[in-house]
Amino acid sequence: MSTAEMSIMFFLQMAAIIAACRIVGWLAKRYLGQPQVVGEMIAGVMLGPSLFGLIAPEAQQWLFPQASRDLLFVVAQLGVGLYMFIVGLGFDVGHFRAKAGSAAAVSLSGIAAPFLLAVLITPWLLQTPGLFAAHVPLPQATLFLGACIAITAFPMLARIIHERGLSKSPLGTLALSAGAVDDASAWIVLAIVLASLGAGAGVAITAICGAIAFVLVMTLLMPRLLAPLARAAEKQGKLSQPAFGVMLGLFMLCAFAMDIAGLHAVFGGFILGVVTPRGVLTQDLRKSLEPFVVTALLPVFFCYSGLNTQLTMVNSAGLVLVTLAILAASILAKGGACWAAARLTGQDNSTALGIGALMNARGLMELIIINIGLQRGVIEPALFSMLVLMAVVTTLMASPLFEFVYGRKARERGELGALHDAEAAPPALEAHAAPPSP
Amino acid sequence: MSTAEMSIMFFLQMAAIIAACRIVGWLAKRYLGQPQVVGEMIAGVMLGPSLFGLIAPEAQQWLFPQASRDLLFVVAQLGVGLYMFIVGLGFDVGHFRAKAGSAAAVSLSGIAAPFLLAVLITPWLLQTPGLFAAHVPLPQATLFLGACIAITAFPMLARIIHERGLSKSPLGTLALSAGAVDDASAWIVLAIVLASLGAGAGVAITAICGAIAFVLVMTLLMPRLLAPLARAAEKQGKLSQPAFGVMLGLFMLCAFAMDIAGLHAVFGGFILGVVTPRGVLTQDLRKSLEPFVVTALLPVFFCYSGLNTQLTMVNSAGLVLVTLAILAASILAKGGACWAAARLTGQDNSTALGIGALMNARGLMELIIINIGLQRGVIEPALFSMLVLMAVVTTLMASPLFEFVYGRKARERGELGALHDAEAAPPALEAHAAPPSP
Repeated sequence: MSTAEMSIMFFLQMAAIIAACRIVGWLAKRYLGQPQVVGEMIAGVMLGPSLFGLIAPEAQQWLFPQASRDLLFVVAQLGVGLYMFIVGLGFDVGHFRAKAGSAAAVSLSGIAAPFLLAVLITPWLLQTPGLFAAHVPLPQATLFLGACIAITAFPMLARIIHERGLSKSPLGTLALSAGAVDDASAWIVLAIVLASLGAGAGVAITAICGAIAFVLVMTLLMPRLLAPLARAAEKQGKLSQPAFGVMLGLFMLCAFAMDIAGLHAVFGGFILGVVTPRGVLTQDLRKSLEPFVVTALLPVFFCYSGLNTQLTMVNSAGLVLVTLAILAASILAKGGACWAAARLTGQDNSTALGIGALMNARGLMELIIINIGLQRGVIEPALFSMLVLMAVVTTLMASPLFEFVYGRKARERGELGALHDAEAAPPALEAHAAPPSP
Repeated sequence: MSTAEMSIMFFLQMAAIIAACRIVGWLAKRYLGQPQVVGEMIAGVMLGPSLFGLIAPEAQQWLFPQASRDLLFVVAQLGVGLYMFIVGLGFDVGHFRAKAGSAAAVSLSGIAAPFLLAVLITPWLLQTPGLFAAHVPLPQATLFLGACIAITAFPMLARIIHERGLSKSPLGTLALSAGAVDDASAWIVLAIVLASLGAGAGVAITAICGAIAFVLVMTLLMPRLLAPLARAAEKQGKLSQPAFGVMLGLFMLCAFAMDIAGLHAVFGGFILGVVTPRGVLTQDLRKSLEPFVVTALLPVFFCYSGLNTQLTMVNSAGLVLVTLAILAASILAKGGACWAAARLTGQDNSTALGIGALMNARGLMELIIINIGLQRGVIEPALFSMLVLMAVVTTLMASPLFEFVYGRKARERGELGALHDAEAAPPALEAHAAPPSP
């Protein structure tokens, strides 16, 4: 494939990817009441071997030839790195501090239960060939699976809560703080797994020391370095082009640093976003990045992820059983555990169920984690495909389940706006991205 | 180079590219009073074999290995295609109609003189080996060189005029309408050259018929198809995410269509931009695209272009002579001819010189044309490098020359804001992009 051909095909691929995400996203929203992102996750799977490749293998090979995969991979990495930067920019560190009792209980069980369940089922999964990579030892496999189960679609959760005006309700603050703690913990565990899987102790030490040094520099130095930019943005009332350039350059450096240290670009983006001083700077950064990242780059990630998803691999009774077991365990260990914790710390049943339903959605975050796992050779395509299914199902469940267990009653009590508020309002460009800054 | 390595290096490359463009752009602005884009053109050349590769060949090879060129090429195409889309969105078709007499004379001489001069010097250039590709016949070589000399940095010209509050002055309307006509003509000539260079009559006919059909569909059908989107945007007061997705998908399709027809993606982007109904739709599209395209993607184009620029190729007295001849011919045939035409149609000398100075800047538009010429095998690296030099020099000349021949006097007459108005004001995100919508 010549360079020119690759470039020509890239425009067609982008057209197909954007169109598929738009159409499936719209259908999911219109007929299933699902957020856009759910439709896009499914659209990605549909573009891969699980649907498009199954009905029209030649057309699929023509549109997404092997030679163009490298390109899609890099664009997907850029998209997901920038997306995590946007998520970081909207991350409210205050959530960690808000609400003690219940929040601690919910977040703790939202981490502890998934890892406990991972301890129980990972030995069994390791015995089934083709799920975990051959060289992965039990502790790392367990931690990885635990992180996969523990992760929460934090940006989506925040969006649902914000859209329905629940940010200041007990359910809202509880779910937001627990979700933030759980996601942070799951990412830290993933970082540990990736670091410890390096070829030899030297690599692991580099990764761990690099990550610690990075976090220290970022939290101690970066806010001070960025303070003048933030002040200038406040003074001018908007982000200047030079400042935007500096932030983008910094993002690229941070993504590179975390990649080269042996972790992943997403950590660099996310941490930079978290430490950026709040105000006009973060608001305008998100406003400038979100439309293009969410509409053009992130769909490439969904597509790349879908190209690796082969649902046809789940082709025996044994593997179907494994898939169902993972699904059931995930719902139980995350949704169930969070519900129980909320209930035990005095929340009413409706609130506790609502929290369980929201915390159980894994969305895009799960896709990011398992794509890193596949790329780094932790898991094999079969387990990857099962986890994609788990991510899609738990995310699909969230909205209707939340509506069923909490929304209807809350609306009767007048606590909640009309269900379709979010849809009736002019669709915001932020429709499926990061939570709003406080 | 593995996929993962390519992705890791891509983040570092992007960091280096963004940093180089920012720093050189800032220096050019601060110390030379030049627009940002001039600095970025130079930064691109500096990252290539002409400077970075000259001082540190190994480091340059490490940062921009051959294996990653494909990737940079595709990102550059996407960037330049989207940039031309933005230019199209800001293109005021009214300019074609405004100002009859002088405008017609200036624009006509701004096209006729370059092509006449190309007729005179191309036979000589064709005799020098290593400038034009061996298979290119005289007529096409002449037309291509004519287009290279006739092109104007239209977005930059519009920006300078707008920044200094000259949009409604005789100079402003004259330069804007003549610049628009000249650029449109040069692009049409380029399209004809590319179409006629196809392998065999069949390919040329496909290209020409394809382009005509495309333009017809785009001008007759597209405004009607987009009318509902435009109305919805007006009604909501902003561009919705779905509408943004539709426009991006359309852009990708148009870029693909013009590429596959044998022309170039930039035509697809530009024409789509021109036919998009004006209003909130076009304003918000530009606002959503510009920051990322101008700050992150376009610099990749400058860098890719710079990687192909080998100023060391101009290494003999003969080639230096050729370079100087091209430079002198370009300035004479464009700046000189436009000045003469304005003078002959009754403009005072200061206005006529000002118009000549502005029309003579070629900027980014020249880089786009010659990159297409190099990529399609019309010109060879040596002529490419000479034309890069011509583009940089004529663009560098524009601001100080304009200030010298027109600005000082106009300011004395109170027609012009302070020179540094544009810098003192909060730097807009649009600082070096498309002209504002009317």
